[in-house]
Amino acid sequence: MEAGERIDTVPIESPDTPRAAVTGTLYGVGMGPGDPDYLTLKALRVLERAPVLVHFCKKGRRGNARTIADAVVRDPAREFPLVYPYTTELPPEHVEYVSSLAAFYDDAASRLADQLGAGRDVAILSEGDPFFYGSFMHLWRRLKDRFPVEVVPGVTGMSGCWTRANTPITWGDDVLTVLPATLPFEALTAQLAATDAAVVMKLGRHLPKVRRALSETGLIARAVYVERGTMAGEAVMALADKPDDIAPYFSMVLVPGEGRRP
Amino acid sequence: MEAGERIDTVPIESPDTPRAAVTGTLYGVGMGPGDPDYLTLKALRVLERAPVLVHFCKKGRRGNARTIADAVVRDPAREFPLVYPYTTELPPEHVEYVSSLAAFYDDAASRLADQLGAGRDVAILSEGDPFFYGSFMHLWRRLKDRFPVEVVPGVTGMSGCWTRANTPITWGDDVLTVLPATLPFEALTAQLAATDAAVVMKLGRHLPKVRRALSETGLIARAVYVERGTMAGEAVMALADKPDDIAPYFSMVLVPGEGRRP
Repeated sequence: MEAGERIDTVPIESPDTPRAAVTGTLYGVGMGPGDPDYLTLKALRVLERAPVLVHFCKKGRRGNARTIADAVVRDPAREFPLVYPYTTELPPEHVEYVSSLAAFYDDAASRLADQLGAGRDVAILSEGDPFFYGSFMHLWRRLKDRFPVEVVPGVTGMSGCWTRANTPITWGDDVLTVLPATLPFEALTAQLAATDAAVVMKLGRHLPKVRRALSETGLIARAVYVERGTMAGEAVMALADKPDDIAPYFSMVLVPGEGRRP
Repeated sequence: MEAGERIDTVPIESPDTPRAAVTGTLYGVGMGPGDPDYLTLKALRVLERAPVLVHFCKKGRRGNARTIADAVVRDPAREFPLVYPYTTELPPEHVEYVSSLAAFYDDAASRLADQLGAGRDVAILSEGDPFFYGSFMHLWRRLKDRFPVEVVPGVTGMSGCWTRANTPITWGDDVLTVLPATLPFEALTAQLAATDAAVVMKLGRHLPKVRRALSETGLIARAVYVERGTMAGEAVMALADKPDDIAPYFSMVLVPGEGRRP
């Protein structure tokens, strides 16, 4: 750790423990794309030392960030799971989804504030990079003005995917556009038509629409589908060769750039 | 290392050494954004074990990837610098620039092929992530069909910059566009107008144009300038507060997204 940085090793106690004079630090730890070999040296140190390790998960499941940490985290007393309120998905623009999620983040922030206030460092395990999509930012936003914060950047899921697809994503002066598959067809098509390289994330049930947008823009032949890149159960194939439209949460489509190659 | 993977420790000998029966592996090693703490566990292992460590640099300078490796590389006998043919910059579309660069990569690939052919693993130190812009890909392209290759993904320079700027770059369903500042003004403006979040790289002498494009699209107030993010000499400021238009190679402008925040 750098000079002045502190990670204490006090075990988790009741939130009723009196507040310490010095508060804990909130760490957002980038866990990388999946393979624990792609953790950074800094992430490893924080995971080894922080007394409270927080991960998001769905009810009855462990969550991917927690699975990545298996190589490091052996003491269940340090674990602090945050269970999302929905196991089935409502559309994110649904008013009930938004209010329920806001209450979930408020409650989670309050529980972490108790830990931080008691002087314990708290590490939130974040898939990929903490400031690139993801749930960490919603807790960061609620806690950053009250406690010291350090973010540990990570290898993104998309880097892991283009590495496993064995394809450079951008050359020379290529423009890269990162698109959520949740966009409407027209917006997807317009974005794809205007870029040199693309990454389409959050595929889920949107894969048929993404296929149509790639066909419309003449990019389908260049598109590569990657599922669970760098993780157990990894699959890489030309999108044109994928026989179905079943795409789990950890899947994406890559359209590699074709820029300058001296 | 994974089972079956090999990194030998034969010292560099003359390229005239007879070819080994087993060739070496070419590693493209993502060195991360600058701070050696952001090296991955895998990158560290490859750097510690590969007998030939290649880095790109300009004449009379060390190159940033090599500086990041200082914590790891202590034996100068393993170093293999590749010195770019130009110290002053010609525009990349200039015919002489392209042909000279092509000859440089051809020659470099040939020298690395000698090492690989002699059975030595070769690690090319790549700033950020090896498949996201950068020079590694030009050697990869020339060698990948002749030798075993493994790419080690890295934390990108842009992740390092938004971490140090202390700002999430994308929320919810934000679109992120990564733009080289070398684009014409009209293209920059069109791309910025059509996205939620942006990273503008390769600023150099293009910063005045980037400022105009950000003003034109109403984004200038959101723009953050980051120079040498995570490295010695780091600077972070609102672009509007930057008093000059001097931007070194390792600088970028971030326009953070403002997407869904339950």
